[in-house]
Amino acid sequence: MKHSKHILVLGSGRSSGALIRYLAQASEDHGWTMTVADRDRSLAQQKVAEHPTVCCEALDALDAGARGQIIAQHKVVVSLLPAYLHDLVAEDCIEMGCHLFTASYASRSLREKADDIIKRDLTFLVELGLDPGLDHMSAMADIDRIRSLGGQISSFSSFAGGLVAPECCDNPWQYKFTWNPFNVVRAGQTGALYIKQDRQVVVPYHRLFASHMPIPVRDLGVLEGYPNRDSSMYKVIYGLEDTETVIRGTLRYKGFCDPWQALVDAGLTNDGVKILVAPQMTWREFAAMFPGLMAFQTEPEQEQSDIGRALHWLGLFSDTPILMEGSHTPAECLEQLLIRKWQLQPEDRDFVVMQHQIRYELPEGQRNSTSTLLEKGEPDQTAMSTLVGLPLAIAVKLFLLGELRISGLHLPVVPLIYRPILRELETMDIRFHHQDEAV
Amino acid sequence: MKHSKHILVLGSGRSSGALIRYLAQASEDHGWTMTVADRDRSLAQQKVAEHPTVCCEALDALDAGARGQIIAQHKVVVSLLPAYLHDLVAEDCIEMGCHLFTASYASRSLREKADDIIKRDLTFLVELGLDPGLDHMSAMADIDRIRSLGGQISSFSSFAGGLVAPECCDNPWQYKFTWNPFNVVRAGQTGALYIKQDRQVVVPYHRLFASHMPIPVRDLGVLEGYPNRDSSMYKVIYGLEDTETVIRGTLRYKGFCDPWQALVDAGLTNDGVKILVAPQMTWREFAAMFPGLMAFQTEPEQEQSDIGRALHWLGLFSDTPILMEGSHTPAECLEQLLIRKWQLQPEDRDFVVMQHQIRYELPEGQRNSTSTLLEKGEPDQTAMSTLVGLPLAIAVKLFLLGELRISGLHLPVVPLIYRPILRELETMDIRFHHQDEAV
Repeated sequence: MKHSKHILVLGSGRSSGALIRYLAQASEDHGWTMTVADRDRSLAQQKVAEHPTVCCEALDALDAGARGQIIAQHKVVVSLLPAYLHDLVAEDCIEMGCHLFTASYASRSLREKADDIIKRDLTFLVELGLDPGLDHMSAMADIDRIRSLGGQISSFSSFAGGLVAPECCDNPWQYKFTWNPFNVVRAGQTGALYIKQDRQVVVPYHRLFASHMPIPVRDLGVLEGYPNRDSSMYKVIYGLEDTETVIRGTLRYKGFCDPWQALVDAGLTNDGVKILVAPQMTWREFAAMFPGLMAFQTEPEQEQSDIGRALHWLGLFSDTPILMEGSHTPAECLEQLLIRKWQLQPEDRDFVVMQHQIRYELPEGQRNSTSTLLEKGEPDQTAMSTLVGLPLAIAVKLFLLGELRISGLHLPVVPLIYRPILRELETMDIRFHHQDEAV
Repeated sequence: MKHSKHILVLGSGRSSGALIRYLAQASEDHGWTMTVADRDRSLAQQKVAEHPTVCCEALDALDAGARGQIIAQHKVVVSLLPAYLHDLVAEDCIEMGCHLFTASYASRSLREKADDIIKRDLTFLVELGLDPGLDHMSAMADIDRIRSLGGQISSFSSFAGGLVAPECCDNPWQYKFTWNPFNVVRAGQTGALYIKQDRQVVVPYHRLFASHMPIPVRDLGVLEGYPNRDSSMYKVIYGLEDTETVIRGTLRYKGFCDPWQALVDAGLTNDGVKILVAPQMTWREFAAMFPGLMAFQTEPEQEQSDIGRALHWLGLFSDTPILMEGSHTPAECLEQLLIRKWQLQPEDRDFVVMQHQIRYELPEGQRNSTSTLLEKGEPDQTAMSTLVGLPLAIAVKLFLLGELRISGLHLPVVPLIYRPILRELETMDIRFHHQDEAV
């Protein structure tokens, strides 16, 4: 039965909707067989409701035997599992001779397997979602276009954010959760490193949100961007060794970073100590554990600062009970508060913003290239999950059609991979707006 | 051959000298057999040079077979291995029916084995060195004495530090390494939590060294104390549930915390991003990656601040080459710099300072109890290694003599354990100075 079926999708959680629908349709069109396996079989079943030909299986991905058995039956594995499970899946795929597609970062241990992957003539495409994924593809399309003109790139800056549509911004933070709250609360804790005019700049966590930069985006005005973990490695990944400024970062609407910095400053995102939450404890009592919050709590209402207003809006100084008990880190408590306050409402639509700014030189002078993606979600389908799932799904389809012939471990930074994917996304009206002008 | 020998010491590194000598002498006195096992057998041999009856073995502690075999032959195991190996050793000891003594913190997984340890009628004594170790013993001796007087304890504060002797302070930091530089550079990164007047106070890492408190110590003037990770758990461990203020912390001489805070602020202790250290890179070029250092670099020499002076003294703004290459975190680079600058010289002597301050109430009024340990090292033996090794060694001897009868997993917080150990330390002139006065 080895490789008798075509596609195995592991995981049918939050980001799987668009991907499963796309691949189910492609399977029907091309006569492929497809399996969706999830710990919760009924969740998988929900996602494939309109495609009765897709097979659903219950799978505990930590069960090595069951995992190996199902992988061995398929030609291509798409893993939407949590990142820490990918190494296990990757090992199985190498052993069973399966191709692997994921939207997760290439881990160090996966990179160490690159030789094995090539030797067995397998195709492992990773970082194939939105960010990482579409960011690489669209950035490399810009970079390769500029290179083909003979342009010398002096500055590359790329920012992306998962936001809500501007018309749905109805709180002082201009933010709601459209993605994993756990990660949002703990964003940036490793600090950041970027390259500015050929110098490495280190930004420790506790200065990260204070170091936000103004990022003007078409139709949206000026947003706030803070640097991501390690921009310097994109000199190598994108071939920008001679580029003086390389920075990648995260976008928020104006008004987010300063109050978030105040929470970081005061220690509310700390995940290293556990406080004891007494029954009936209120948020005001919680806030009192953080001396750095005091100044905002006591601001007179008429002279309230923007930061104070944002913190008060969260209810941090209210007599509302926390409704947690036992030992929790400050970050865990803050996450619970924010899940309630930043919840996406049924009428809200999420909004993905991505923008690359590239400054380069031609013999006739300096130019500036700007590529912008603005993608609004649907009531029943976030833009985030569409944009994570579709590039991955398209890649799998192209691969099975024989239109994506490349073996080994790859990020989508080569034209062979990114061109057909971006082209098909355009037919689905997912496209960057390009602007290129002399400066 | 099961349990045919008495004492097995695992590891003969930095903290083992005093312990091995003490136990070797006790073994000769009482006719016990003793084995010292280290990955590097010659290191073990060096340490037992004067005690030819002690047997030395080469052991890779990660080799489960060899580890189990040697443990099975002994009655009591003393583990000086790195903390991450203790869980393995503990499992072997439970399986083989050996008693275990360590100076390391009781890990969560060890605490989960408490029932097994009792069931097999074994004795596992942990946190039996200096800090943790002597701190518990001496604090509980004070607490139990006050309780026996009927005292109500309102405040418990305990600070300890591994310093250099005052006469050896010849740099603006008043500090040199007398212990693991890795840990000193990364101290406090989880943040801290303590109890002040019945309120939990959270101190995030980036405010930890700015929050230092003045700690007057007899003969030494006022030192600086910053809070340790989680003081709140000592309410339970020390039975201080009704005590309004509970804080444990680390001591430094005056002048250390402010410049260290400046390094933390600027990001030099960051361990989350890797900078690329070019060949020939100087410390000045390194410093330029941290915008927060700029203000100190450009201070005019006549108006140099204390912080600026301390940073300049490190050579952070000098043209000295870094002498590292490749990718390193800022903390790794800083550690290398400090290892050179804060090196203990042959004539330097280390100095351990520990002090408990307890405020309590008797019917006749408020009182204040202060216990202080000041212990200076010898040229060939640091006070640190003596004070880590001796309590552990004494406990093992008492146990083998049948004078320490207790089974299960314990910290030295009960009189049965701490009394005879403190008593024997006093005979070796290691004693706290006690002061108790009305306030």
